[in-house]
Amino acid sequence: MNTGALIEQSLARILRSVSGDGGPPRLAAAMQHAVFPGGARFRPRLCLAVAQACDAAESPAAQVAACAIELLHCASLAHDDLPCFDDAGTRRGLPSVHRAYGEPLAVLAGDALIVLAFQAVTLEQRIPAELRLQLLALLGAASGMPHGIAAGQAWECEADVALAAYQRAKTGALFAAATAAGALVGGEDPVRWRIVGEYIGEAYQVADDIGDVAALPMNLGKPSGRDAALGRPNAVGRLGMSAAQRRLRELIDASVESVPDCPGAEELRQRILAATQQLFASRLARPAA
Amino acid sequence: MNTGALIEQSLARILRSVSGDGGPPRLAAAMQHAVFPGGARFRPRLCLAVAQACDAAESPAAQVAACAIELLHCASLAHDDLPCFDDAGTRRGLPSVHRAYGEPLAVLAGDALIVLAFQAVTLEQRIPAELRLQLLALLGAASGMPHGIAAGQAWECEADVALAAYQRAKTGALFAAATAAGALVGGEDPVRWRIVGEYIGEAYQVADDIGDVAALPMNLGKPSGRDAALGRPNAVGRLGMSAAQRRLRELIDASVESVPDCPGAEELRQRILAATQQLFASRLARPAA
Repeated sequence: MNTGALIEQSLARILRSVSGDGGPPRLAAAMQHAVFPGGARFRPRLCLAVAQACDAAESPAAQVAACAIELLHCASLAHDDLPCFDDAGTRRGLPSVHRAYGEPLAVLAGDALIVLAFQAVTLEQRIPAELRLQLLALLGAASGMPHGIAAGQAWECEADVALAAYQRAKTGALFAAATAAGALVGGEDPVRWRIVGEYIGEAYQVADDIGDVAALPMNLGKPSGRDAALGRPNAVGRLGMSAAQRRLRELIDASVESVPDCPGAEELRQRILAATQQLFASRLARPAA
Repeated sequence: MNTGALIEQSLARILRSVSGDGGPPRLAAAMQHAVFPGGARFRPRLCLAVAQACDAAESPAAQVAACAIELLHCASLAHDDLPCFDDAGTRRGLPSVHRAYGEPLAVLAGDALIVLAFQAVTLEQRIPAELRLQLLALLGAASGMPHGIAAGQAWECEADVALAAYQRAKTGALFAAATAAGALVGGEDPVRWRIVGEYIGEAYQVADDIGDVAALPMNLGKPSGRDAALGRPNAVGRLGMSAAQRRLRELIDASVESVPDCPGAEELRQRILAATQQLFASRLARPAA
């Protein structure tokens, strides 16, 4: 089975583990809607690619960690799309969770998905206890305060935004957790691997900013031009389009160069390069409106 | 130091551990507002009382588990008060989190407090790894799907409400986690202790329903008459006031009688009786409007 199919299968299994059994069916459906169909699944793919480079691709820990990170990402999207944040009616080309199930279930789906991310790792008996706790610590740091995605989103509510902290937390935190978790399950030092995810996360953020300015909504699966409308920081607004594109290429190169030595380092470098170029291609295809 | 002061001190320490350090200050303040000043701290007190009955009052695990349960409770209040749920402008006699900090930070404060509950247990090195994982499993079950507080709140969004499941999840889940966690850290069987918390939780729910119908808002610290206004199930509406009061007394008795044998069983029974009577006194003082 290829990586993409494995991720979908694992996510479905994890969601099934808390659906049914007498729980409220519409919340189960809203959680399902928040997770499927997925986007690029970039974060879990990155986690698994790092695990593979560290010779741990087959480890159950890698699968579960990858999925837990994706669940945190899906939870944050359900909350970020709410009327009080981005007020996004569409996501991945479909109605956003609150548009499909109403605001209360969108809030609760996000809550329950955050909990599920921690549950999935906690309950995975095939992972040694100490490793489970190390992975849980990574998930906590990546999602909470002071540097996780909730903190990142909260910077939009500050009058005085620490721009680097904002971007590192809002986008970088889960990417850094993905590379750190992949390394951890492979027995490598997670600290040395965080930087790879941080560069990729920053690249992703710049690509997202370019997409927000330049792309057609049909290519994004969500509305474009939101940053300007919502007064959010945007790399294109700050640097101009061509400097933003240059910065994006620099960040991709930096991420590739920062891959530490490991059994599959060279292959991983090639995969990061290919994946980032493929992912960003549609957004860069229309560089200026 | 008495139990109440210990709980406040531990909660403050846990919140401090993720505030500052370059995180967004308004989110830190919103989290603080969601947790302090507290209400009765009934759930953490119950957890510590059970731990004490099992001779584990001094255990760091008991303190951390008690606080993690309270953090999950505070997170749920911040979300339940949102305009899309109860639209409550006050809580514990002060502005609700969204009234004080806006909806986005109320959503994010809830998210970050959920994460913090898991972080606090995960990172507590003084607790053996296996026990930390058992406590984390309790927290997950009590807060997520299919039977945790998110599931309980979600029953309000179902056309066909499973009333027992609704009440057990919405209120009972954290009380059951409190008694189970207290037993677990004391080396007792958590399964036998869950029932104590379930009875107390159901008693609490009935008392809350009575309070919602009968109390003055100033005694609740939040608006009264909300269940009828929001079409939510309410024991008084279902049973009538005097049957609801009878049911409340039965549940308190059942909780006391279900306390398993342990070194401090008799003292615990007395404490449950005293605490429930004290807690519910103000609400029962005005039995019918």
